[in-house]
Amino acid sequence: MSETARLIGVGVGPGDPELLTLKATRALRDADVVAHFAKAGHVSRARAIAAGYIRPDAIELPLHYPMTTEIPKSAPAYCDKIAAFYDDSAATVAAHLNARRSVAVICEGDPLFYGSYMHLHVRLAAHYQTEVIAGVSGMSGCWSAAGAPIAQGDDVFTVLPGTLAEDELARRLADADAAAVIKLGRNLPKVRRALGRAGRLGRAIYVERGTMTDAVVMRLADKADDCAPYFATILVAGWERRP
Amino acid sequence: MSETARLIGVGVGPGDPELLTLKATRALRDADVVAHFAKAGHVSRARAIAAGYIRPDAIELPLHYPMTTEIPKSAPAYCDKIAAFYDDSAATVAAHLNARRSVAVICEGDPLFYGSYMHLHVRLAAHYQTEVIAGVSGMSGCWSAAGAPIAQGDDVFTVLPGTLAEDELARRLADADAAAVIKLGRNLPKVRRALGRAGRLGRAIYVERGTMTDAVVMRLADKADDCAPYFATILVAGWERRP
Repeated sequence: MSETARLIGVGVGPGDPELLTLKATRALRDADVVAHFAKAGHVSRARAIAAGYIRPDAIELPLHYPMTTEIPKSAPAYCDKIAAFYDDSAATVAAHLNARRSVAVICEGDPLFYGSYMHLHVRLAAHYQTEVIAGVSGMSGCWSAAGAPIAQGDDVFTVLPGTLAEDELARRLADADAAAVIKLGRNLPKVRRALGRAGRLGRAIYVERGTMTDAVVMRLADKADDCAPYFATILVAGWERRP
Repeated sequence: MSETARLIGVGVGPGDPELLTLKATRALRDADVVAHFAKAGHVSRARAIAAGYIRPDAIELPLHYPMTTEIPKSAPAYCDKIAAFYDDSAATVAAHLNARRSVAVICEGDPLFYGSYMHLHVRLAAHYQTEVIAGVSGMSGCWSAAGAPIAQGDDVFTVLPGTLAEDELARRLADADAAAVIKLGRNLPKVRRALGRAGRLGRAIYVERGTMTDAVVMRLADKADDCAPYFATILVAGWERRP
């Protein structure tokens, strides 16, 4: 036990356990408590990635979302329920901090980039010693696996959630030199149409489980179906003026 | 010597040597040749970050840019000179690969994200066994140091080079939920004006050497001067609809 209350957001990278940073592995070695968010009934993806670095005697604290995609995000019931869940989770983490334990919250990718850790961060960082350990983002894992130079020089690079409306996706795709579309899942048919309208379909690369041994990397135009996991990514590489 | 011709783009992260991935340290341990780009007369920033992980008996291959900002990028002389430099660099690396040496090209941040490695990648990857090891990006290092949750949910996040025209910067800043402006240096006064026009000045955070012990993190509005190194970053955090 560290005797020091300390909150640490630990990015564990995109999937390959070798893509943890040295700093992340040290934080896990030193933490009294290791917390991770997961869908109820599932093992956290961050937990699976970091499994080899968690001490057997660490206290594990799984934080299970009350729901994920069952209720539309625009519904007031969703907002209330998810805010209450993050409040409860923060209170649980705070109880460990108040007992002078260090708590590492592990996150897939990079903690402050579309990650659940930030919900704890905004509730607790003002009250406890806090550190954020940057991680390799999921999208970096994808373009590295694809060997696709994504942006260079004066390129504008944009990250677009696939949840946006088709018109907005098409407009923004046409306006960016390079793009990553995240949160695909059932949004894929819409994203595909938006890429076509923006004249970007031919350059779009589809990536699933980018840094894993069973990675899928293909031209989106060659993908016959519209089945995609939520964490798949589409890349549009920029750098058209390469010297 | 590895007896295997292999090109490896190795991201060494944003500055803190602890933010190298395990995979990057292993690649450096195994490489016959370690190559790095640098301004003539300077030590490569990537070399400085990775210094502790380079084997004493590795062959070091510094690749010195013929110029950086002395000639405007729009000038034909710039394009010709820089293309010839990358051709020469690729030929030098290829000579090592042809001698069955493995060559690790170390890059600050993430190799395929605004990095010089990609100029070698596009010239060599089709001809040699190649791997890209994703790294923590410089901007991830900055928002982690600032403790600033940058994007969440349906946020659109955009990376803008400070080299863009003021009107374009202002338009794009107003159109994004979250942004990182990179390549500051002498572009800072222009970027500051664009942030003001976009109504984003109050939310802008200025970060220098994000993950180093001498990091500077401050509200841009509190920065009295317009002196900034080229590698400083301005962050505009999104996530205005936080639950």
